[in-house]
This record gives sequence, structure tokens and C-alpha cells, in this order.
Amino acid sequence: MQRIVVLAGGIGGARFLRGLKAAAPEADITVIGNTGDDIHLFGLKVCPDLDTVMYTLGGGINEEQGWGRTDETFKVKEELAAYGVGPEWFGLGDRDFATHIVRSQMLAAGYPLSAVTEALCDRWQPGVRLIPMSDDRVETHVAVELDGERKAIHFQEYWVRLRASVDALAVVPVGAEQAKPAPGVLEAVAEADVVLFPPSNPVVSVGTILAVPGIREAIADAGVPVVGLSPIVGDAPVRGMADKVLAAVGVESSAAAVAEHYGSGLLDGWLVDTVDKGAVERVEAAGIRCKAVPLMMTDLDATAEMARAALAMAEEVRG
Amino acid sequence: MQRIVVLAGGIGGARFLRGLKAAAPEADITVIGNTGDDIHLFGLKVCPDLDTVMYTLGGGINEEQGWGRTDETFKVKEELAAYGVGPEWFGLGDRDFATHIVRSQMLAAGYPLSAVTEALCDRWQPGVRLIPMSDDRVETHVAVELDGERKAIHFQEYWVRLRASVDALAVVPVGAEQAKPAPGVLEAVAEADVVLFPPSNPVVSVGTILAVPGIREAIADAGVPVVGLSPIVGDAPVRGMADKVLAAVGVESSAAAVAEHYGSGLLDGWLVDTVDKGAVERVEAAGIRCKAVPLMMTDLDATAEMARAALAMAEEVRG
Repeated sequence: MQRIVVLAGGIGGARFLRGLKAAAPEADITVIGNTGDDIHLFGLKVCPDLDTVMYTLGGGINEEQGWGRTDETFKVKEELAAYGVGPEWFGLGDRDFATHIVRSQMLAAGYPLSAVTEALCDRWQPGVRLIPMSDDRVETHVAVELDGERKAIHFQEYWVRLRASVDALAVVPVGAEQAKPAPGVLEAVAEADVVLFPPSNPVVSVGTILAVPGIREAIADAGVPVVGLSPIVGDAPVRGMADKVLAAVGVESSAAAVAEHYGSGLLDGWLVDTVDKGAVERVEAAGIRCKAVPLMMTDLDATAEMARAALAMAEEVRG
Repeated sequence: MQRIVVLAGGIGGARFLRGLKAAAPEADITVIGNTGDDIHLFGLKVCPDLDTVMYTLGGGINEEQGWGRTDETFKVKEELAAYGVGPEWFGLGDRDFATHIVRSQMLAAGYPLSAVTEALCDRWQPGVRLIPMSDDRVETHVAVELDGERKAIHFQEYWVRLRASVDALAVVPVGAEQAKPAPGVLEAVAEADVVLFPPSNPVVSVGTILAVPGIREAIADAGVPVVGLSPIVGDAPVRGMADKVLAAVGVESSAAAVAEHYGSGLLDGWLVDTVDKGAVERVEAAGIRCKAVPLMMTDLDATAEMARAALAMAEEVRG
């Protein structure tokens, strides 16, 4: 049985995983989830990326928007607003609130996030093992200039409230340096046959996971193929506003530049979209095997095809 | 302006207060609320009696059931059950959850319950000053025999889950002895012109408030009329299962016995229902002025009439 480890952010990671499950139904898949965009709202712990993976693979996701629950209502939010309690820019639905209530109750009772995530997945049966990158608190902050003043704000405030409408001057995963990989993370990497980077944000999703000391090193040292899929197609992010945070780390918004950003020390193979086939040569020159295939996750079939291409490239580089 | 202090439990107290506001629209009313039936559910602090008073006077109550919010939905509860997280016997609606989320967030931030209650009332504008009896944790436990074993359970478990279907062997307001009256409680009593005991449960509502050291003494020493209304009509509780907890403290379920239970050291006047006019003599023999008037809170007019009768008796005993 093939053991696959995937480093996943939110929507892009979750949709790719659905394709991967279809492409490799027999595989043993471990997902290391980004927790850098976790946020405390209304006294509750909210883990957007973990939940997006869990809801998407468990059949509870709002398909149109890609996050949050299907068949959702917003009574709690309406009441919180009536109490004058914000923030109002983060849209938590009633069904979603239940997840955060259960999680917060378990955390308060002393369970680590990894155990809580496992318990939540007991209900959702995502068909993968979902582990947060760390049980320690890591919070991605973005430095911006607002009203002539430089300040650091929570990633969610930058992404959801400001919709990345101002430049990100820096992106800092606060707490990452002191964080330890959650139980099971390094073991899963050590036992993996393949490691995949889905078309998730290379800075605030995959990059944050790699910022937890030990994870990048374990992947580089695992001696197995590490293959990524470009989240940039034709110089623009497929979804989201990845270009904004790429600029903050000095990386141009192109399929080739993202591959170089990961580097050949980490990455063995890289898939770019067919519109970016001009980038193949540049990526290969950086010592990373590269191929152009369709990278738009328009439906499950197209996504499964991308997963198959990634697994095929892994076999290719394994040589 | 007449200053009235009312010791209130949940439904009975809240409905009486609505009548009192109608009867004395100019009065300055302070409500000392029972917190002995507060409970932590799903990691959130729930204060049923305070909320019933706040929702009833603020126009948000579910009129038929007498507690909880009007126009309520139950998505959060449905999801919690899907996670296998209970208890399921306590029916929290989505709108109601928002109150507990705001309260819990403020408590976690370090605000005392009295300040939190004031903040919540900012929205509801109940037209009275609502103060919890104490900022300290007091939790009413009921000793019962279940499956041949004697055990102490939370009052809510006795009342809501078991519906008082087994005998209460003892009722203990755990923590009351160490509790201090909340800021404003003793001051309100000291400045009151009248103190009223609505037809609330004499053991688990009014009794719990009186169990906080200092409150009973302040009322007895205030030197102003203290008038109560019997929650027992014709040997049965008007609502709820007060007879069960009266038995636990060795008090028979009758209008006269409840007056004697409070005692002439505390109570100056007592209203019984017209069906209990035979009790008037016995109550007066105990040194408490007594009168029989209709005590069924069938509508606002009837309830306002009860409040007028209580205020009239206060003037009578003031002499």
C-alpha cells in the first residue's frame, strides 16, 4: 500500500485531496494541515484549513464557496452582532460554530489539537489521516501599512477583512520557531513513499507548515520523491491572492518562481499548467524535474488526473 | 421614586416582574437573580434564571415555554449531537447559544458575572437592574437515590433530565457558604423601600439567593417591608415541581408552610391565593401579615394586580 503524505492548506489542498483519493483509492494518505491561519473568535478556537479539509473530504463542505458548511444558517452570528460583539467580517455559520464549540471544549479540557482533530474526524470520516502541523500555537501575521502606520495584523484580517487589498510587507508565522511538529507528523514523513505539495499557497499554507522546525528537514531527508503542483497558472493564482504574499517574500508570481522558492533541496518534481509550459526549462535548470499538464481543478475527474500526474512524476523521479 | 428589590428565580420571577413593571412603571426595580442553577455546557457558561429574566423583560422570550428565545432554531445542537457531544437533554437553541458565547468570552477575559450581565442587558434593556446574587460560583446540587445508589447531581440534571421524577433527598447550594454577594446587591437592599419575593421556588430560587451569606441578614435588617407571594396554590406548585424540593427541606407543600419556612424574622407580609384563604389565620399566627388574593399569572393584567396587592400589603405592614 502506497503511503502518501500531503501538506495541505485550505480550499486548494482540500480539493486536490479529493482528486488524490479518487486517483489512489487504496493509498494510505496522511495530511499535515496548516494551522497558521487558526484564529480565536468569540473565545472559540477556529481552524479554517483543518476544517476545510475535514468538511470537503467528509461531505459537509459548502461546495460553491469552498469553505464552511453546506445547508448553513447564521442565527448565532446575527445574535452576536445584536450584542455588538464582533468581528463581523468572519462568517461563521451555526453548523460551523458547533465544530468550534466542540474543539474549544476539548482543548480547555486539556486535549492537544491533534487529538481533538482526530475526534472531530471520527464523525467526518475524511478517508485520510488529518494531523495539524503542530499542537503548539502558530499564528501567521502580516505586516501592512494602514493609515500611514506599519502594523502587524492576523492573516485572517489581511485575507478576509482586507481581501489582500493592501500590500503585504512581510509574512511572519508567529510562534513557528518554538513549535514542535504534532505527534505523528515526522513519523508519517519518515514512512512516506511520496510527499506531495498540492496547489496550496506556498507562503501562508505550505510555507507555514515547512516553518515548523523539523518538518522541512524530515521531508528533505526522507529520501522519497517530493512533488508539487503549481498554484500559479499563467502568472496568476488559480484562486485566492497568493501573489500578494509571494511579493512579501520576494518571489515573483509565476509557476517557475514558486518552484525555485521551494528549491531543489526540497522539491524533486514540479507540475505546471500547460499554459506555463515555457517555464519547464527554467524549473529543470534549477534541478527540479518539471512537466506541463492541465492544472485547473474544474471537477473531480480533472483533479484526479492532476493527482495521477503528480504520482506518475514521483515514480519518474524515483527512477 | 419607590425603590423595589426583587429576589427572582426563572419563569415565575420573570413573569411577576413583568406585572410589577406594569403596576409600578415609575419604580426603580433591582432584581437579584438566582445563579444556583447555572451550568457549564459544552464549555460555555449558561445562566438559565438570569437569561429568563432578561429575555422575558427584554421581549426575546419564547412565551409558550417561558424560557429560551423566541423564533429559535437548533442547528448547533443538531451538530453537537452529530459529534456525539452531549448532554442532549438541555435544549439550547442557536440564538440562545450566542448569549452563552458572549458571556463565556467575557468571563474568560476576566469580567465578573455581574459586569457581564450588565453588558448583556445593554442589549435587552429589561427596564430593571439585574444583578446576579453573586459573582462567585454557586451550584445547586440535589441528592437522589438512583439505581439503589445515593448520589448528588446538578440541579438541572434533576429538574430537566429527570423532571424531578425521583425524590430529592437533599438540596445543597454548593459554594454558597463561601460566596460573596455581587457588587450592588447589599447596597440595593439597604436602599430599598420594599423587598418582594415573587412566586418563585422557595428552595432552589429564593432560598439559594438567601443562602449567600449577608443577603438574608441585609434583608432582615433593612427595616423595610418584605412581602412574598406564594408559589403554592391549593397545595400544589403553580408551575414546576416545587413540592419535590420542599419535601427535601422538610417543608409541606402548602402556602402557609412556605411562609413559615421563610419565617417572621424575614417576612412581614404574605399573599396566598383565594383558594387558600383558610391559610391566612395560620400565617398570621406565625407573625406574618397575610391576605388571600388571586395568584394565577394568567395574563399581564392579572399579574400586575398581584404586584399591586403586594405593594399595598407592603404599605399596610409599614404601618
